[in-house]
Amino acid sequence: MEEKEISQAVVGRLPRYLRYLGELRDEGIERVSSQELSDIMHVTASQIRQDLNTFGGFGQQGYGYNVGYLYDEIGKILGLNREHRLIIVGAGNLGQALVNYTDFERRGFLFLGIFDHDQKVCGKKIRGITVRPMEEMADFIRENQIDIAVLTVPKNSAAEVAELLAADGIRGIWNFAHVDLQLPRHIQVENVHLSDSLMKLSYNLASNGRDDLQWAESGQESRSLN
Amino acid sequence: MEEKEISQAVVGRLPRYLRYLGELRDEGIERVSSQELSDIMHVTASQIRQDLNTFGGFGQQGYGYNVGYLYDEIGKILGLNREHRLIIVGAGNLGQALVNYTDFERRGFLFLGIFDHDQKVCGKKIRGITVRPMEEMADFIRENQIDIAVLTVPKNSAAEVAELLAADGIRGIWNFAHVDLQLPRHIQVENVHLSDSLMKLSYNLASNGRDDLQWAESGQESRSLN
Repeated sequence: MEEKEISQAVVGRLPRYLRYLGELRDEGIERVSSQELSDIMHVTASQIRQDLNTFGGFGQQGYGYNVGYLYDEIGKILGLNREHRLIIVGAGNLGQALVNYTDFERRGFLFLGIFDHDQKVCGKKIRGITVRPMEEMADFIRENQIDIAVLTVPKNSAAEVAELLAADGIRGIWNFAHVDLQLPRHIQVENVHLSDSLMKLSYNLASNGRDDLQWAESGQESRSLN
Repeated sequence: MEEKEISQAVVGRLPRYLRYLGELRDEGIERVSSQELSDIMHVTASQIRQDLNTFGGFGQQGYGYNVGYLYDEIGKILGLNREHRLIIVGAGNLGQALVNYTDFERRGFLFLGIFDHDQKVCGKKIRGITVRPMEEMADFIRENQIDIAVLTVPKNSAAEVAELLAADGIRGIWNFAHVDLQLPRHIQVENVHLSDSLMKLSYNLASNGRDDLQWAESGQESRSLN
């Protein structure tokens, strides 16, 4: 497939396409038009065509999209055709919650290790995975070819831990700490700033009733773009 | 303050402004230029001026922004000058993790109740809050003037629970279930789709090295807009 520059806005919408296409596929539906996708996803058909054309386009005029093919191709674009090997740093409730999300494993994201600086937590098992002390992290990353670290430590230790992870050869950090990390350019960071999300909800509640915000109810920014 | 239409993209960036302004304020800094903000936030100065002008502008040429005033005004815009009363539906690890985030309370988001359909969990206390059965939810929402429900139930029961919440008078749903909710227009939904975020990281790892994606490392989409 031809590689083009893809905006992060489009990339951000791909998992949602994947989810709906997966549901269609599971229902045994083999092809779908951009209009049909538009109806179930509440995004305009032109947005859908535009997004999918970014990748060279999978659709044919008058036929629509082949659901299985499109599902597989988007999966490949998202890097889901290869296995990812993860550790979690911070064995608190959030870290534990993430380990217990079996959905991630189904997608090829394997949780292999959990680390915590608290000696009281070390040795404890979460879904069969032993919590280890931070001192063992560097060796573990190397020996188990870990590529992604999930950062669920408190804000004040996040920067320090992230630097350790970078030095240990981690390629990607899924950051739940409420701080922006400053790391070498080759390390990918994806932030989940929960407070920011909650404040956005608060804003929309405060603005409730204003027409311009009504489209935001289903959480899609895309609808406003057309 | 003059009310203008504000795009969800700008709204999504406001909490980050608030975070940095809060840090400046805590350091005793009274005023800041868009260029200084640009340097610490890694967003262009023109982006900052453009975003803050959406609200009528708080800055003065040659003076910059008054940190405390701007912090307070953004807080008001985000609805943080009023208290929010929350319940959590789903007392699993994720629900527990959220209850334990004291940061939210500091912002005026008060967790008042936790509900779960599992009788074995009911009666258990999480940070002093008793887990209650779903049957008590409607009365609890009414009696405690709950405005936000946090949805941390499994995907397959999310739609049903969301409809209950809507019928019970909830105004906003913070949805962690991996499904898009179809609800009446007056109910605000803010989604946290963790799988989508992880897939985005996976995409950026797969694309690592491509110049067009280097800017994405610190998680800001904004830098590409200028």
